[in-house]
Amino acid sequence: MSKLAVSQKIKLAVSNGEHKTQRIKVGGVEVGGDQLIVMAGPCSVESLEQMLEAARAVKDAGAHIIRGGAYKPRTLPYSFQGLGEEGLKILSEAREETKLPIITEVLSPEDVELVENYTDILQIGSRNMQNYNLLKKVGKANKPVLLKRGMSATIEEWLGCAEYILNEGNREVILCERGIRTYETITRNTLDVSAVPVIKQLSHLPIIADPSHGTGVRSLVNPMAKASVVAGADGLLIEVHPEPEKALSDGDQSLHPNEFNNLMKELTPLVRAIGKQM
Amino acid sequence: MSKLAVSQKIKLAVSNGEHKTQRIKVGGVEVGGDQLIVMAGPCSVESLEQMLEAARAVKDAGAHIIRGGAYKPRTLPYSFQGLGEEGLKILSEAREETKLPIITEVLSPEDVELVENYTDILQIGSRNMQNYNLLKKVGKANKPVLLKRGMSATIEEWLGCAEYILNEGNREVILCERGIRTYETITRNTLDVSAVPVIKQLSHLPIIADPSHGTGVRSLVNPMAKASVVAGADGLLIEVHPEPEKALSDGDQSLHPNEFNNLMKELTPLVRAIGKQM
Amino acid sequence: MSKLAVSQKIKLAVSNGEHKTQRIKVGGVEVGGDQLIVMAGPCSVESLEQMLEAARAVKDAGAHIIRGGAYKPRTLPYSFQGLGEEGLKILSEAREETKLPIITEVLSPEDVELVENYTDILQIGSRNMQNYNLLKKVGKANKPVLLKRGMSATIEEWLGCAEYILNEGNREVILCERGIRTYETITRNTLDVSAVPVIKQLSHLPIIADPSHGTGVRSLVNPMAKASVVAGADGLLIEVHPEPEKALSDGDQSLHPNEFNNLMKELTPLVRAIGKQM
Amino acid sequence: MSKLAVSQKIKLAVSNGEHKTQRIKVGGVEVGGDQLIVMAGPCSVESLEQMLEAARAVKDAGAHIIRGGAYKPRTLPYSFQGLGEEGLKILSEAREETKLPIITEVLSPEDVELVENYTDILQIGSRNMQNYNLLKKVGKANKPVLLKRGMSATIEEWLGCAEYILNEGNREVILCERGIRTYETITRNTLDVSAVPVIKQLSHLPIIADPSHGTGVRSLVNPMAKASVVAGADGLLIEVHPEPEKALSDGDQSLHPNEFNNLMKELTPLVRAIGKQM
Repeated sequence: MSKLAVSQKIKLAVSNGEHKTQRIKVGGVEVGGDQLIVMAGPCSVESLEQMLEAARAVKDAGAHIIRGGAYKPRTLPYSFQGLGEEGLKILSEAREETKLPIITEVLSPEDVELVENYTDILQIGSRNMQNYNLLKKVGKANKPVLLKRGMSATIEEWLGCAEYILNEGNREVILCERGIRTYETITRNTLDVSAVPVIKQLSHLPIIADPSHGTGVRSLVNPMAKASVVAGADGLLIEVHPEPEKALSDGDQSLHPNEFNNLMKELTPLVRAIGKQM
Repeated sequence: MSKLAVSQKIKLAVSNGEHKTQRIKVGGVEVGGDQLIVMAGPCSVESLEQMLEAARAVKDAGAHIIRGGAYKPRTLPYSFQGLGEEGLKILSEAREETKLPIITEVLSPEDVELVENYTDILQIGSRNMQNYNLLKKVGKANKPVLLKRGMSATIEEWLGCAEYILNEGNREVILCERGIRTYETITRNTLDVSAVPVIKQLSHLPIIADPSHGTGVRSLVNPMAKASVVAGADGLLIEVHPEPEKALSDGDQSLHPNEFNNLMKELTPLVRAIGKQM
Repeated sequence: MSKLAVSQKIKLAVSNGEHKTQRIKVGGVEVGGDQLIVMAGPCSVESLEQMLEAARAVKDAGAHIIRGGAYKPRTLPYSFQGLGEEGLKILSEAREETKLPIITEVLSPEDVELVENYTDILQIGSRNMQNYNLLKKVGKANKPVLLKRGMSATIEEWLGCAEYILNEGNREVILCERGIRTYETITRNTLDVSAVPVIKQLSHLPIIADPSHGTGVRSLVNPMAKASVVAGADGLLIEVHPEPEKALSDGDQSLHPNEFNNLMKELTPLVRAIGKQM
Repeated sequence: MSKLAVSQKIKLAVSNGEHKTQRIKVGGVEVGGDQLIVMAGPCSVESLEQMLEAARAVKDAGAHIIRGGAYKPRTLPYSFQGLGEEGLKILSEAREETKLPIITEVLSPEDVELVENYTDILQIGSRNMQNYNLLKKVGKANKPVLLKRGMSATIEEWLGCAEYILNEGNREVILCERGIRTYETITRNTLDVSAVPVIKQLSHLPIIADPSHGTGVRSLVNPMAKASVVAGADGLLIEVHPEPEKALSDGDQSLHPNEFNNLMKELTPLVRAIGKQM
């Protein structure tokens, strides 16, 4: 497990030596502590009704943070690109109503200030993991950053990207394993659950898992969420949509509200068994 | 999750439609039932003393089946190739002493009868997953077969190999996820935990996980064993060596007996939380 | 070869139906015509002396376009990040001296106008292939864009990124295959030579190959440059440094000027054999 | 390029230090010399008529060795498994008629003697690259062995398998690059052309390329054959079928006889340009 240490000759900010997980406050909760933090909501903010319905559902089921995308990176320019600032405003309303903090993705350095004004956590997506100007910009922000692993990033490259953020002064970085690209085609990605304990051994940064993107298959989200939690993840990022069949993006991997509710119930005894709380 | 179904136009024996996991009796235990079955022991049978010490240790910690390799597939012909039949005899003595069934790998069609005489489960290793003559030969054997996934086999190819065994009449096949080859180099392989629930949805064959080969790193075996179990694995295959530092093969990924003992203790509440027994 | 067509229901600008390669003028040369276009120079612009020496050497050997990086995306923030605008000015002097057009990478949307003022081709690197805001920005620029394939991008995703540029009005996009991430570790990447004929069958956009990044090994650049050319590449992107051993980046894969000279000589009969000119 | 050397502490038979390619006589031709050796024919021997038609066609086009499979490793046991010894007899008739040597695959140690009696080269397929008992058996045979790279084998593992053969006394091993498994799905595999020059730098064994399996797409065979040749391959293995649309296996990647004829004509000037002969 000393490969990272071997390949770097300098002291990195992402590895404070002790590797005791840092606690990062978001609203009334802490990521990296004894509580499993669940972030849930739709892939895209599609309308006020859809977002509020999703937010209420995940809150009722016990989620701690509401997710929703206002800026969507899509493979083709003709796909739905997100509602932009209107989506941010809808997210604010969801926060107002649920009193839960929100997380949303920022795609471009020039949008960081705007998004920061609305969100509680700035999310950097997989495609932008090595968008260094964006990393530097959120490194100067006053909100925690969730940094997703790139589609085929090594763990060392991923930590190098976190280093860009820390190096600008923002020490509140949460890592997110979201599946890596392999030859297997039954799943959309292969969720690298082992990245969770590897990060615990190499860094003090908290790490959460995204079994929705990590599998791309609704029926696999539940078992892979559980696997990530007992492997040591500090939290989960789960896509939940009131009507996945009608979702404008990622419907195949989004849970129905009742499926999310079941997942939360089934997680509880596991979380307790490893000495944490929900 | 219907990709396998889509690509095959014929009814496969590996998928009996209902997908209720088949129970396979091995000695006094059943793989595929409500009990988590743990198979443990050294990578290679090195000597009677080493094997007995390992067997006693894993039995004391609660393992159900003893593993040990008498025929070792190695990257170079000059590496230790295993003790051959002498190793099989040593394994028999370990069974005699512990009263636990044993599992060992068979490499060649011509060795199947010999190995079958000694072992309780015939193991097919990753390198031989598509050695169809070997598959056909164990398909005619009267012992259960543990079929490891190939290093870069798709789940569909893996099930195709199980089909070769079932097609010869041996219906007792246990699948074993052991990590797939990816670009990540911190781990030896990437344990594809999601293969466990995928198999549960595609087949009635029991599936176990091998976090030792799946990670190649001792400190990752514990968290990945837990992850596999809560994702639905019917059992585990764990390398344990009395003195991993002196092991003739796979020392870096073998647990010390006390580490294995801790793992078994830590697994217990998780196994109960998901409604199974140890 | 109809997979792209199958997966897209709409007409894409990257595929004009006929797939006759588009010719793109850069200074006095054309990319996509009967002449093999060679772009060469150091990974990073390090100093005026280094850049001029490299530029003269590659011009003398027959290169058509000078490359050099002023903004460098690096794994860690502590590595040399490039000279920035000073590097662009040095590149201008190299163009002045050699009368050859130049190509350099742009990393951020906010730098596009500045870089466009200096360069003849705007390069989008692998890490930024899916930086959609950057793609949209260069899509509005008046200079051709060289779009490198992402480290683990499918060909379909890559073409989707080119579509973002074309959709903004800039129809002059040159694709560049630069190696994909695989499990093999002897090479830095695996140059996917087959991407060249695949693109020729799916799109009218010209495609060049970068055997320097594609292999990461100096001694492999020559054979892989040749392979790419006879597979149909419209050009090459080659790293050449006056003193590779002292390079601030990518020294291991940079050719010595005399090695580059030899490559150009050895390419000539091959280029003629396939009916093109140097 | 010294990674192999670094990881092995012993002198290997696959690397005789000088790395001057060894010449291996097969019938009247030599693999590894100044002549590009082309092995061609159908994936499977299907009937005497089909085989003779294919053999005549590839001979007329200039092929040096006839290929055809009598034992076929297939993903499912219900697919066509080859004609077995009848196929070997048909191959003999094709040799009788064309006076060209033949190459065919052997799947099992127990078949080695039978296949050796019929064939001029014993082929070990990708699935069996690490079937060590099979390697040892052909290592005792008196015919040259063509060893295909495993689907996800590193170059170092591949050479380790060649070492198994050489270590038994058979020094006549021809390596064959046939594409590796990657995430890209447009091609069946990714032909690792760079493996050709890597092998030339690490070993004295001749190496040929198989662009048929390497791409899985008929229209890509021609450009990838050319790429492999100029990268230094000593030969090619090409699937040609009189009627690819009716082939019992691999029809999508088999050339029509006239396409093969065109390829041979187009290869000629390239082969001369690199100082070899057809």
